[in-house]
Amino acid sequence: MSEIAEEMRLRPDRGEVATYIPELARADRRAFGIAVIGADGQLAAAGDSETPFSVQSITKVFTLTLALGKIGDRLWKRVGREPSGNPFNSIVQLELEKGVPRNPFINAGAIAVTDAILSGHEPREALGEILRFLQFLAEDSSIAIDEAVAASEKRTGFRNVALANFMKSYGVLDNPVDYTLGVYFHHCAVAMSCRQLAMAGRYLAHSGRNPTTGLLVISPERARRINAIMLTCGHYDGSGDFAYRVGLPGKSGVGGGILAVAPGKASIAVWSPGLDAAGNSHLGRISLEMLTKRMGWSIFGE
Amino acid sequence: MSEIAEEMRLRPDRGEVATYIPELARADRRAFGIAVIGADGQLAAAGDSETPFSVQSITKVFTLTLALGKIGDRLWKRVGREPSGNPFNSIVQLELEKGVPRNPFINAGAIAVTDAILSGHEPREALGEILRFLQFLAEDSSIAIDEAVAASEKRTGFRNVALANFMKSYGVLDNPVDYTLGVYFHHCAVAMSCRQLAMAGRYLAHSGRNPTTGLLVISPERARRINAIMLTCGHYDGSGDFAYRVGLPGKSGVGGGILAVAPGKASIAVWSPGLDAAGNSHLGRISLEMLTKRMGWSIFGE
Amino acid sequence: MSEIAEEMRLRPDRGEVATYIPELARADRRAFGIAVIGADGQLAAAGDSETPFSVQSITKVFTLTLALGKIGDRLWKRVGREPSGNPFNSIVQLELEKGVPRNPFINAGAIAVTDAILSGHEPREALGEILRFLQFLAEDSSIAIDEAVAASEKRTGFRNVALANFMKSYGVLDNPVDYTLGVYFHHCAVAMSCRQLAMAGRYLAHSGRNPTTGLLVISPERARRINAIMLTCGHYDGSGDFAYRVGLPGKSGVGGGILAVAPGKASIAVWSPGLDAAGNSHLGRISLEMLTKRMGWSIFGE
Amino acid sequence: MSEIAEEMRLRPDRGEVATYIPELARADRRAFGIAVIGADGQLAAAGDSETPFSVQSITKVFTLTLALGKIGDRLWKRVGREPSGNPFNSIVQLELEKGVPRNPFINAGAIAVTDAILSGHEPREALGEILRFLQFLAEDSSIAIDEAVAASEKRTGFRNVALANFMKSYGVLDNPVDYTLGVYFHHCAVAMSCRQLAMAGRYLAHSGRNPTTGLLVISPERARRINAIMLTCGHYDGSGDFAYRVGLPGKSGVGGGILAVAPGKASIAVWSPGLDAAGNSHLGRISLEMLTKRMGWSIFGE
Repeated sequence: MSEIAEEMRLRPDRGEVATYIPELARADRRAFGIAVIGADGQLAAAGDSETPFSVQSITKVFTLTLALGKIGDRLWKRVGREPSGNPFNSIVQLELEKGVPRNPFINAGAIAVTDAILSGHEPREALGEILRFLQFLAEDSSIAIDEAVAASEKRTGFRNVALANFMKSYGVLDNPVDYTLGVYFHHCAVAMSCRQLAMAGRYLAHSGRNPTTGLLVISPERARRINAIMLTCGHYDGSGDFAYRVGLPGKSGVGGGILAVAPGKASIAVWSPGLDAAGNSHLGRISLEMLTKRMGWSIFGE
Repeated sequence: MSEIAEEMRLRPDRGEVATYIPELARADRRAFGIAVIGADGQLAAAGDSETPFSVQSITKVFTLTLALGKIGDRLWKRVGREPSGNPFNSIVQLELEKGVPRNPFINAGAIAVTDAILSGHEPREALGEILRFLQFLAEDSSIAIDEAVAASEKRTGFRNVALANFMKSYGVLDNPVDYTLGVYFHHCAVAMSCRQLAMAGRYLAHSGRNPTTGLLVISPERARRINAIMLTCGHYDGSGDFAYRVGLPGKSGVGGGILAVAPGKASIAVWSPGLDAAGNSHLGRISLEMLTKRMGWSIFGE
Repeated sequence: MSEIAEEMRLRPDRGEVATYIPELARADRRAFGIAVIGADGQLAAAGDSETPFSVQSITKVFTLTLALGKIGDRLWKRVGREPSGNPFNSIVQLELEKGVPRNPFINAGAIAVTDAILSGHEPREALGEILRFLQFLAEDSSIAIDEAVAASEKRTGFRNVALANFMKSYGVLDNPVDYTLGVYFHHCAVAMSCRQLAMAGRYLAHSGRNPTTGLLVISPERARRINAIMLTCGHYDGSGDFAYRVGLPGKSGVGGGILAVAPGKASIAVWSPGLDAAGNSHLGRISLEMLTKRMGWSIFGE
Repeated sequence: MSEIAEEMRLRPDRGEVATYIPELARADRRAFGIAVIGADGQLAAAGDSETPFSVQSITKVFTLTLALGKIGDRLWKRVGREPSGNPFNSIVQLELEKGVPRNPFINAGAIAVTDAILSGHEPREALGEILRFLQFLAEDSSIAIDEAVAASEKRTGFRNVALANFMKSYGVLDNPVDYTLGVYFHHCAVAMSCRQLAMAGRYLAHSGRNPTTGLLVISPERARRINAIMLTCGHYDGSGDFAYRVGLPGKSGVGGGILAVAPGKASIAVWSPGLDAAGNSHLGRISLEMLTKRMGWSIFGE
């Protein structure tokens, strides 16, 4: 772990920090953190594993889990489960498919999922529910929303406003667009450290259970299925490449974090703010590739 | 196994037999076969597991293996590794991406892979090489091409002729279009039984090795990577759904066959000619879903 | 004229009234009006030529004229001049072309034109300017905005909100999205009768001049150019068909109106609320085809 | 006329000669020719007006005329009449519209038109018919096909082979693809001078008549309609710009020629091999803009 963190700290190729949300552009390209929690619940961590960063799209995994808990398979009428073959914020496919997003991990899909969680409640309540779920999963009540990031995205997120209104025009969203987007912008602005994120992801690595307490968060089947969607759709238009190189279900965010899941073995979180061309953490992907190889964790064979 | 075959034989929902290649339209919708070869090399089979059928796109897995053996990672300059988000024979994406197909399992990608295998040889030689590779993998020299199917596809495969010429216009193909397509149409017309197909797929389930002899066909890393591509791209625009429901790397063909791989555990072949809307075997997918569930073979967790 | 109106009144095929703006759905499908103003300034009219209707997209001709007056050819940096080959409210092309709309007569283009007119002013002032320009052209100060239609569109125009935010994300709009859309929704909601509309269009039929007073509204070259854009882009994805059948520059609106221009000869307005599949007035187009044929007014030859 | 030719000869901006058909790349960028035939049948010409050049897509006007003569409005079941909003050889739109090309002047559309002319005949006969029609219109039996250009396009026209096979896969072509393409490649390779081309275009300028003999070639209505299609679709994705700047129906070819029609006034041909970004003759368009302005020939007003 420390070796990987050390190697990552020294590499000159670090990708580019996301600038489309102004607040994210302040991130330190030199940062790198990693945290791994095994089946025994033990934490191994290195680098900036305690520094909170903006998890951004990674919350889409947790909101998907919540929405499936609320409305079950009815969710699949509003959002598909197929890789998109397009950038994360594309609107083209949305028109061809009459406002139904291809999967819950592109922006449009995550907005539709947020709308399902909201379902008639006040934005404040829905947001509280999402936050409490994260705190519960990570066993850490200090997890909070970075209001500066939320405000920054709200001021500049015209593309997401476009996506949401476009879906609304097809009747795919039930709630007022402003409500849904308010919750969406805020839950993307949650700040977590690698340790907190790896804690939160444990149920996906252990058939839906908290490996320490043994309590079920979701059914084993649902955990497998969420992992499947992470594998095929978790890295935007770089999902195929991530599966090919890393071989684990994972979800990235433009804040530079990646949550990865080695089923039966470990929940892993890495963070490095520099992104590759597809919008995924450059060193995050490389470090996960190293780790999986060394540990023999690929789901595609030894 | 027999239970699954029995249940499949009785189900009324059987999908629709492919008609776009006239010769395939003759297939018997009542047919269903399954063959599983475990880590010990033992065969378990049921239903029409000995009946040869047209494997069609399933050969794309083997031609990909051959082409990587020939030119290694240079192949990835001619073809991508990302899911397409489009039907198997779409030409739209090919124009947006300047003639470079998204992955080796859509038709355009498999034609580009075939062109790489051909690389200056006579079509007859390249075809012989592909056939001998299949016979070697399946340990069965009786595997042959169904010339009636090859001729039928050649007479009616205008869409594939369009795809190939389109790539040629972008300089993505090296050989004369007729040569490349000749080899492509013929290798898609190979006929194999479920048993033969499961035999041929063993190296993917066992880290590149023949599990009986222990001999390496390809490196463990390459086997993992081919499995990853099968998972993200193996079922056209139903790849996400197959991963979600079945949870195994697999490749389908419009002849109704599916080859699936449970890493470290088994090589599986199913066949039933009726297809679903995305062009994948309807009962093939359902039977694999049952099998994986019963055996706990999903790569996404227990 | 009366014959045409009579024939139109009796035809059973009347198209379908637009329903996507609820307020428009109230229109009477039986209505038909026509007004023609010749080079001598004489009015010929028949049917419901005095009934005000919602001109909708027809105002795009007048806002284009105003914007060109304000910023001249700099406008063409924000909007193109090519037919779109897509429905009027498509967002696909907008993504492929980085937020620059194809022409000023699709919704996105008209929103960009409105933004150019607004340019730093208060929405109220910009709207006043547009309204006064219409009143000046039509020599009729009674022309007004139908606030019920404007409010209805504002409540339901999610697609236009999406288009505007999408352009804003590319930096194509200068003003706050709400400002620009406020002006846009209101100027589309202007109500005019066929007579008023034909009056307002005279300058396009007479090389930029008011044919009665002889005063120049715009230069002859600009009048020709606006006519050219009307011909190639004036009827959404039915522009080619309108040119083929009618042979005059024209602009339609989903309220069922069409303004057509016979250069050197006449300004023509027709109205019938039923629309064809491309969103253009069904009887409006048919009556213009009859009129042009009888009068020999096609710009493409006698 | 001579002034325009002189000015054109001296201009430094000349566009780029088409290179995608190797034989065309040999053209002399310094060349410029213009020929105008008025209503009185008088010829005015300047520059290289007698030099034959490859007319390429300009023959699409004449094959459209022939096909309408053969099967009338049934042609519109195989090809549309709307501007494409895409480059001349795009295949994207063809997929979205199920193999039916948008208009007869994009490559796919012209191939469909050629197929309609062929309709069961031998390619040789169809080609003879097209050639004799051109000779008849131009009153010049010396017009011939440049076999070197035809062979060059046949060797390199993979994109057109793709388009034709794509349409064939949708059942839009009746004849063997090789037959249709053989005729298409040859009629695009006709060589004509500006004078010959202006002669051939007279019937479009004069309501379907030969202005000298008074004989009808086609009906006045059909002439108007072909002119309308030339205006909306005659210059690929630069059609809107040509209408805006020149204001005449016209058809360009990648050989650098443009045929333009001033209804009731003149048939005009210009030639200069350098092309602009949309594939239209750069100086051809500029010289037509000058000519139309000086003569007041715009169809959109004085």
